[in-house]
Amino acid sequence: MPSTFPDHNIHPEATGIAKKTVDAHQKPEELVFWSGWFCPFNQRVWIILEEKGIPYQYKEVNPYAKEESFLKLNPRGLVPTIEYQGKPLYESTVLCEFLEDVYLDRPPHVLPKDPYEKARVRIWADHTSKHIIPAWHRLLQLQTKEDQDKARQDLYEAQRKLAEEIKGPYFAGEEFGLVDVLNVPWVSRDHVLREYREYKREGAGENYARWADLLEKRDSVVKTTSDKDKLMVIYDRYLAGTANSEVAKAIREGKPLP
Amino acid sequence: MPSTFPDHNIHPEATGIAKKTVDAHQKPEELVFWSGWFCPFNQRVWIILEEKGIPYQYKEVNPYAKEESFLKLNPRGLVPTIEYQGKPLYESTVLCEFLEDVYLDRPPHVLPKDPYEKARVRIWADHTSKHIIPAWHRLLQLQTKEDQDKARQDLYEAQRKLAEEIKGPYFAGEEFGLVDVLNVPWVSRDHVLREYREYKREGAGENYARWADLLEKRDSVVKTTSDKDKLMVIYDRYLAGTANSEVAKAIREGKPLP
Ligand SMILES: N[C@@H](CCC(=O)N[C@@H](CS)C(=O)NCC(=O)O)C(=O)O
Ligand SMILES: N[C@@H](CCC(=O)N[C@@H](CS)C(=O)NCC(=O)O)C(=O)O
Repeated sequence: MPSTFPDHNIHPEATGIAKKTVDAHQKPEELVFWSGWFCPFNQRVWIILEEKGIPYQYKEVNPYAKEESFLKLNPRGLVPTIEYQGKPLYESTVLCEFLEDVYLDRPPHVLPKDPYEKARVRIWADHTSKHIIPAWHRLLQLQTKEDQDKARQDLYEAQRKLAEEIKGPYFAGEEFGLVDVLNVPWVSRDHVLREYREYKREGAGENYARWADLLEKRDSVVKTTSDKDKLMVIYDRYLAGTANSEVAKAIREGKPLP
Repeated sequence: MPSTFPDHNIHPEATGIAKKTVDAHQKPEELVFWSGWFCPFNQRVWIILEEKGIPYQYKEVNPYAKEESFLKLNPRGLVPTIEYQGKPLYESTVLCEFLEDVYLDRPPHVLPKDPYEKARVRIWADHTSKHIIPAWHRLLQLQTKEDQDKARQDLYEAQRKLAEEIKGPYFAGEEFGLVDVLNVPWVSRDHVLREYREYKREGAGENYARWADLLEKRDSVVKTTSDKDKLMVIYDRYLAGTANSEVAKAIREGKPLP
């Protein structure tokens, strides 16, 4: 493997509890989940599959390897990707809505039925993509104290704004739903920011902290989370500013995330 | 008006055919459309209102003025914004899906019924937001020949990729739909790029050019388009690199669009 692609060298498979979940989903199904065990975007889709109890076949793929056969499914070469009845789809937010559409009869309902409430959820899904996730990755990756302080403030502000809109206990009310799913993979990885970037959940306010504490305990989240030490091998590179993924490059160049 | 906000000084209302459309929508309705006549994001929503024949009250707002009363509806201070039964919503793509949800019985159907096709439309809606619109604005706004050449190539490539996915005549087939709506405001403004930035529709391939030519003729597009000379007062500032809108600043700083 060329040393210019350090992200190529990742642990090849899920570990810990997540490995048990993988093992339970090996037999062929009409939905194939092309997954990267470490990827937070990917975990969004995995969580919905588990939440709704959808039959799926798990296949691990290293998206950094950009293998021809994978690029045929997803020309962007990113996980998550799925094949449904032999046809490919990708983009985590698109996939979340797709799974809701196809498996509408299986709770939880990722989107509210009421059109106004559904649009409100989509506004805050958009806020998550545009403001929360980029600030999170800037805080992880940027190297000067000044840049980190700015990123931490941006992240607190974006999380606080979202927290003001939580109906409770989950974002849209009683049911675990889209805004919860879109955020939780970064909540369950924020130990990295807490340990190395002076981040605390309370920095975004009590409402945010309470919500984050609740989300990470969700069964579907626990069941799709690998061992910390394997994840830290990857995050160490981000913390050192030497990661080479599409996300890492975008953050370094101040560009939108892929 | 402070000279630090040049975008504040825009022509105050729609002109030409669009003015007639505005005049026909003055009486109170349960849907209020807070619109900026010049804004391409805004035109997306306006087009769907016209396409579906939805009863709406048109209210012009200058989003650069950031008036308190408008910020109460949309804290981001952007058009398009709507009030539906007294409650505010914003973000053009969210609004397009909202109007489809609420007025599902009125054709055209902005989204295909089939979940797979619907997800495919959303992938290309995402591609439009992430790749086509930013490249379009970079080409408009960047000042060196080198930057413009790069932006033009990015734009051609992004439009060509999308064009490969057109089912024809419209993106998703027989019905005018979401991907068409999301792109057409920039198609109907591409005369600016053609005149000042050496852009041609054929640069993105025959498929793209044919599709663009078809889209701009759509009745709903014509009826929501103001006179060119008024638009050019705004675009002249973008072309000169002196515009001060959120979009202009984002492009200048290499950041994601608002
Ligand atoms: N917008 C995409 C982003 C997915 C993404 O960035 N996935 C990363 C792993 S976390 C990936 O596949 N990276 C491959 C690369 O950087 O080459 C989504 O939401 O699905
Ligand atoms: N993401 C927003 C973008 C809307 C937008 O940028 N609107 C511009 C006018 S074209 C605006 O209101 N600008 C106000 C400002 O820049 O302060 C959407 O899709 O609705």
